[in-house]
Amino acid sequence: MPDLIGPVEVVGTGLLGTSIALACRQAGLDVLLSDTSAEHIRTASGLGAGRPRQPGDVPQLVVVAVPPAMLGAVISHALAISPDAVVTDVGSVKGAPLMEVAALPGAERYVGGHPMAGSERSGPLAATPKLFDGRPWAVTPHAGSRPDAVALVEELARLCGAVPVRMEPAEHDLAVARTSHVPHLLAVLVAGRLADAPAEHLALSGQGVRDVTRVAGGDPLLYSQIVTGNAGAVLDLLGEVRDQLDRLIGALSAGDLGTLMGLLERGQEGTRAIPGKHGGPARPTATLYVSVPDHPGELARLFADAGASGVNIEDVRIDHDPGRPVGLVELVVAEDSADVLRAALESLGWAVHR
Amino acid sequence: MPDLIGPVEVVGTGLLGTSIALACRQAGLDVLLSDTSAEHIRTASGLGAGRPRQPGDVPQLVVVAVPPAMLGAVISHALAISPDAVVTDVGSVKGAPLMEVAALPGAERYVGGHPMAGSERSGPLAATPKLFDGRPWAVTPHAGSRPDAVALVEELARLCGAVPVRMEPAEHDLAVARTSHVPHLLAVLVAGRLADAPAEHLALSGQGVRDVTRVAGGDPLLYSQIVTGNAGAVLDLLGEVRDQLDRLIGALSAGDLGTLMGLLERGQEGTRAIPGKHGGPARPTATLYVSVPDHPGELARLFADAGASGVNIEDVRIDHDPGRPVGLVELVVAEDSADVLRAALESLGWAVHR
Repeated sequence: MPDLIGPVEVVGTGLLGTSIALACRQAGLDVLLSDTSAEHIRTASGLGAGRPRQPGDVPQLVVVAVPPAMLGAVISHALAISPDAVVTDVGSVKGAPLMEVAALPGAERYVGGHPMAGSERSGPLAATPKLFDGRPWAVTPHAGSRPDAVALVEELARLCGAVPVRMEPAEHDLAVARTSHVPHLLAVLVAGRLADAPAEHLALSGQGVRDVTRVAGGDPLLYSQIVTGNAGAVLDLLGEVRDQLDRLIGALSAGDLGTLMGLLERGQEGTRAIPGKHGGPARPTATLYVSVPDHPGELARLFADAGASGVNIEDVRIDHDPGRPVGLVELVVAEDSADVLRAALESLGWAVHR
Repeated sequence: MPDLIGPVEVVGTGLLGTSIALACRQAGLDVLLSDTSAEHIRTASGLGAGRPRQPGDVPQLVVVAVPPAMLGAVISHALAISPDAVVTDVGSVKGAPLMEVAALPGAERYVGGHPMAGSERSGPLAATPKLFDGRPWAVTPHAGSRPDAVALVEELARLCGAVPVRMEPAEHDLAVARTSHVPHLLAVLVAGRLADAPAEHLALSGQGVRDVTRVAGGDPLLYSQIVTGNAGAVLDLLGEVRDQLDRLIGALSAGDLGTLMGLLERGQEGTRAIPGKHGGPARPTATLYVSVPDHPGELARLFADAGASGVNIEDVRIDHDPGRPVGLVELVVAEDSADVLRAALESLGWAVHR
């Protein structure tokens, strides 16, 4: 099983490609950059992400990081022009590009991949070698993938700081339909109802609707390509959602409390099925609410005081309070630490409640 | 227009009722407590929230804070037994209780209310006078409400630290159907699909699906009463969502990219329609991502360093990273401050990216 020694070629120097290139450079590997945009290559080179690929270069590994609709064509091209290289990609959907690639000569050198990382920004200037820190990175060999090719792609994931998660391509697509694409589309439909709303209605918006709709702010063109590329799995789940929506509408119309409660309880179960932080089982946590004046330094003072208590803070949220310059900060801590932290903060003059 | 001088009677000493009682006590008012649970009254009294109502007591203002399905009956009873008092409530739905109350003698003394505040906890022990700090508090007079009664309820909202927002009851119910009840129900349907998922699929869960589904963790019994009480407005919007879902399914089945893009763009517009922090127009912000080791004190160090830069932090989120003990902290700051903060943090050794 060969080690990842490079050169690594990155095709597509956007956010993901350039971030991978930077991580490889940091590990001392020779990185070759290819892109249809010469300007992107210059920018990425300027950031220290590597050098343009030259005719004599022979990459050990090619990473294809182009828009979803282009994946199949660019992977095929990479297999053809680099006849000894392992080829992977970072696309959000794995079945569609594989269909275009599986029957080609060299397909045994292709292993799909999908790092679960991104940003609302795009392009090489947004890149960072830290983008993948601690993230799952799906590695999706097909039936004909060579074992050493799979190992090499997993090594790339680890080199980038991610955690490789091996799955079959079809499994991956079912998984992200459920955990990413369908949640995204439903958030879009909820957010679409807000676009029609009178401004005075939106004045009552709380943190809940902000959370439900946040992902709907993502790039429509990117998401149209993603869900189109995974249409089968997405449509199956959307059909299930439509059935459940019909049941919900029927129950609410008929005043059928039993069915309504059943649906609400099923949703509550679903929130508990999401794995906890660091992939472990969800630990019981408690939330403390602290009122914080909204000027520089107050958060620092709060976190310094919280840190001095020795309690580890699992999650933080600053609520958006319409109407006045006081923020409510939510501190999520292990259930059995909440009283310690609350007492510590109150003794220092913070207004805290659970 | 009479000032709020008390006594204030709070009927229902759960989270909201006891929190209001505590705020009134802090303002020096006499507070009378009523509840069907003698234990809740003892607990709330023990917390300093007031004293049990006695036969000779004459409240100036009665605040009804009971479960949604009980509101109409308890408001009616309060109007009858306190014939000079102004009566308000804190229910999430305003039309349904008003229907039961509007034709009663004394209805001119009733003014609905709905503070936009809560917690995942419930009961008097979770109460705090700070619960309403900076939150909108809908005040919903009906056509026959006396102006001095409306003014008194608005005074209560301000006394609790909230910002009164006057709306007609029917407008309020339309607004919360859109900004709260329908987002909640759609989150429930998305979360319900997770309850069925194989664990290995859920390993790919990112922050997006966590945000979309978080509110679905709320109490099914409470939400079944809320949405049942606002069934008309909720059903209208659910019908719109179903139409849009059908369009989405049709577009995805047919590969109709134009319609798909239109839906995605409409959702993106909706996320931008939500008012910004403090109710003002949304200012352009940028997000910085900082890698932070997951042990006590590191967040304090980060916020101390960020505070020293003089940049005001608008929002914070700690990402849940499956797989390893490094947290990605997102710092949201004004767009034009992002570079200052990034440079400041990087100079102190933090791994920062945008």
